[in-house]
Amino acid sequence: MHDRIRNARLGERVMSAEEAAALIQPGMTVAMSGFTGAGYPKEVPLALARRMEAAEQPFRIRVLTGASTAPELDGALAKVDGMELRLPYQSDPALRERINAGTLDYIDIHLSHVAQHTWFGFFGPVDVAVVEVVGITEDGRLIPSSSVGNNKTWLEQADKVILEVNRFQPAGMEGMHDVYYGTALPPHRRPIPLVDPEDRIGEPYLSVDPEKVIAVVETDGPDRNSPFSPPDESSKQIAGHLLEFFDHEIRRGRLTDRLLPLQSGVGNIPNAVMAALAEGGYKGLTAYTEVIQDGMLGLIKEGVLRMASATSFSLSRDGVDEFNANVDFYRERIILRTQEISNHPELIRRLGCIALNGMIEADLYGNVNSTHVAGTKVMNGIGGSGDFARNGYLSVFMSPSTAKNGNISAIVPMASHVDHTEHDTMVVITEQGLADLRGLAPKQRARTIIENCAHPDYRPMLEDYSERAQRESFGKHTPHLLGEALSWHERFVETGSMRVPDRRPAG
Amino acid sequence: MHDRIRNARLGERVMSAEEAAALIQPGMTVAMSGFTGAGYPKEVPLALARRMEAAEQPFRIRVLTGASTAPELDGALAKVDGMELRLPYQSDPALRERINAGTLDYIDIHLSHVAQHTWFGFFGPVDVAVVEVVGITEDGRLIPSSSVGNNKTWLEQADKVILEVNRFQPAGMEGMHDVYYGTALPPHRRPIPLVDPEDRIGEPYLSVDPEKVIAVVETDGPDRNSPFSPPDESSKQIAGHLLEFFDHEIRRGRLTDRLLPLQSGVGNIPNAVMAALAEGGYKGLTAYTEVIQDGMLGLIKEGVLRMASATSFSLSRDGVDEFNANVDFYRERIILRTQEISNHPELIRRLGCIALNGMIEADLYGNVNSTHVAGTKVMNGIGGSGDFARNGYLSVFMSPSTAKNGNISAIVPMASHVDHTEHDTMVVITEQGLADLRGLAPKQRARTIIENCAHPDYRPMLEDYSERAQRESFGKHTPHLLGEALSWHERFVETGSMRVPDRRPAG
Repeated sequence: MHDRIRNARLGERVMSAEEAAALIQPGMTVAMSGFTGAGYPKEVPLALARRMEAAEQPFRIRVLTGASTAPELDGALAKVDGMELRLPYQSDPALRERINAGTLDYIDIHLSHVAQHTWFGFFGPVDVAVVEVVGITEDGRLIPSSSVGNNKTWLEQADKVILEVNRFQPAGMEGMHDVYYGTALPPHRRPIPLVDPEDRIGEPYLSVDPEKVIAVVETDGPDRNSPFSPPDESSKQIAGHLLEFFDHEIRRGRLTDRLLPLQSGVGNIPNAVMAALAEGGYKGLTAYTEVIQDGMLGLIKEGVLRMASATSFSLSRDGVDEFNANVDFYRERIILRTQEISNHPELIRRLGCIALNGMIEADLYGNVNSTHVAGTKVMNGIGGSGDFARNGYLSVFMSPSTAKNGNISAIVPMASHVDHTEHDTMVVITEQGLADLRGLAPKQRARTIIENCAHPDYRPMLEDYSERAQRESFGKHTPHLLGEALSWHERFVETGSMRVPDRRPAG
Repeated sequence: MHDRIRNARLGERVMSAEEAAALIQPGMTVAMSGFTGAGYPKEVPLALARRMEAAEQPFRIRVLTGASTAPELDGALAKVDGMELRLPYQSDPALRERINAGTLDYIDIHLSHVAQHTWFGFFGPVDVAVVEVVGITEDGRLIPSSSVGNNKTWLEQADKVILEVNRFQPAGMEGMHDVYYGTALPPHRRPIPLVDPEDRIGEPYLSVDPEKVIAVVETDGPDRNSPFSPPDESSKQIAGHLLEFFDHEIRRGRLTDRLLPLQSGVGNIPNAVMAALAEGGYKGLTAYTEVIQDGMLGLIKEGVLRMASATSFSLSRDGVDEFNANVDFYRERIILRTQEISNHPELIRRLGCIALNGMIEADLYGNVNSTHVAGTKVMNGIGGSGDFARNGYLSVFMSPSTAKNGNISAIVPMASHVDHTEHDTMVVITEQGLADLRGLAPKQRARTIIENCAHPDYRPMLEDYSERAQRESFGKHTPHLLGEALSWHERFVETGSMRVPDRRPAG
């Protein structure tokens, strides 16, 4: 029964999720495992949410995680209004609703900053960590689960620790992780000795002070497992433009056919990019990224990727089955690291990653909004996009040119919220085409973005804005009409569309 | 006569500035030395400007530098409309006028990115480098001048090289520089072995292939030498708030009384901060920054700073006299590096710099505009502020709460241009007070910025905006009134003031 808990001392702390959840006090700061729906605690947050719902005296906690989790954590706690603060990245509908209703404080932060800001004390003390693991070794070390995230930091920084040992996660993961214990606070930091995505610089286990472990809960459940949908036409076109760009860069001698380590998000466009790389005949590539998704497993199997480094999985049920059936193969070709290492500016710049990220909108000058619809309503968060875009060899932002049946243009006069400034955006791609902004000044950028990326329905409106702005703007370095710059978003909020309604004379 | 040119072969290339300037062809990309008005070529750009002015067929060149230069370079070439492109940071009035008239393309870029983007080929080939040096050794190595900037990259990347040997710069500088030759292109990059601001990891000389040197010009002139003005009352108050914050952080155990390596700009507020550090009894601090200004010389002399690492000087004439008179003392305590090393994300994060930068405006949520007045008119550029703010241990932005006789508020509803996002701003300071944004969600940030930093004249307007935005905003995570968010800037452009004119009933 306790084959996953091989340490006798920690085996004595086994209790139910309810008993463990009862150890969390109102107002506490609780750091939880979990990254893109993988490796989050499955039962203690649910038990805590039930306790909150039943409590006569309502109470809330502050929740820190790796990134997005799942309905059993973010969803359950959001539904009972059990969080007063949540950081960083999230993607849960119930949680998002509370945030945008203004009733839950959400701190959106670069994923590479979370661990160090915790160590710096910027979020105050961490009272309890709740961390899912695959198992506990005889000598009390922890086998990490399907995400590593900030778990090293949570286990070290928290006063008390609750472990969830999830027997659903394959035991064969043991040995796949690389937990770097060489971090320090300034002025004691040293170079991080990683020079290739396949370098192992740490240990395959997490360590925890057994004195701090107040509960061990046995669980048996799958990760969130987002369904994998095959790429749509628009995503295929975007991937096609990207691959054409790679060809161009290879011909110019700026890339080799091994490219450089790829960072890529999760979703339809990244899936299309993965498929296109395979079709394009690439071999021996590497990924230095946050998340391993279904498409990457395929690429590893085919040798398109010789290996992938990340901090988490984000697989469909089919992907999990594929992984579990071939865990010995994948364990040699996948490394999961802490997210401070997967997203570390030092390493991303050293490796020269190719950063491929989605966006909500880009403006004429290449400022990118990754987070806020109409400048105010947060979707998910910046995630690691800033870590990679700022420090990578190439920073690419991709989106279909329109959303909501054409009512939203992804290319706008002025971004309604800026997560990546003009200084950090090199390439913008929509299904319409690709704008290479490298070495261009603002007005040159505007021209290429409008011509290459805007949807034809919005192109004349953008051209009109840009021409008038170049004539009438106060300063003409980055021309804008201040009274009109955000009018597209206003119109969307008021009418449901950025399009200008027909103004034909009546009668 | 040629005591500064001790290499016989290069001595044969000595010619006049006019002869050297004649070697630069129309349309060429010319990379010049110079950073914050120090170490720029003094005569060749002037001679080139004269040639441009006299030319029957007008022509222009593309100019890359380290950062801002001086009237003899940026000013002279801008006046004759001799630049079609200029990058990065600038601060010259004539140049700024052309940029904001929309007749000269200016690319504003993180200073840590310039060298690597040149190596990556993003700006195309560099035809000629024009680099000021202090002297040439017997074996042909170059003694760097009062700035290093991108000179290593220019000398290596340019097809042809023109050297200016400036005998006005003190020969005693020899040995003070540290030029790191360990950089490489991905995937061949290795950790940069610097762990303390005082580490020397390179060589005190620049190297150049003598075959490429097509001209050597002897010059004898001072750097731009910005006058040093004593801190005004507002700057002293800002410095006071910062020092109080340091005390607070020391009491909380988040800093020691040695602080962490300081990065600081040039100008009235940084001068006030330097003075306050001395008065505050600090000893044995370090600076890891871009520029050594007058105030730092004083701190080094007093032992407040045990050493300073930078890429450039920016001294007054008095400062130059002080430096020249004590060059042997300062040479042991100042290291000038290439700007890719002074501003390197890897090193700034490792050292945990305290980033102290000015700003034009911050908005309610901590988005910072460092560059554009009213969103469109560029002042100088982002410089290295992004390199330090993103990667430092602390990122602080400072400004008086108003400008232009109170007609501009430095705290606005929405930043009219974003150079540093909400994700990168930790502390905002005006003479009114300090807002510590660490660990705060957007609406909490708004409250502390309005209460602590806004000028009393604008505070009620900001409170009013914020309250209405929290009620009426589309999304309430980062509340905004889109139709009003940029209205303060519009009003400034139209009326010369962000204040709302009196609306008393007439008669």
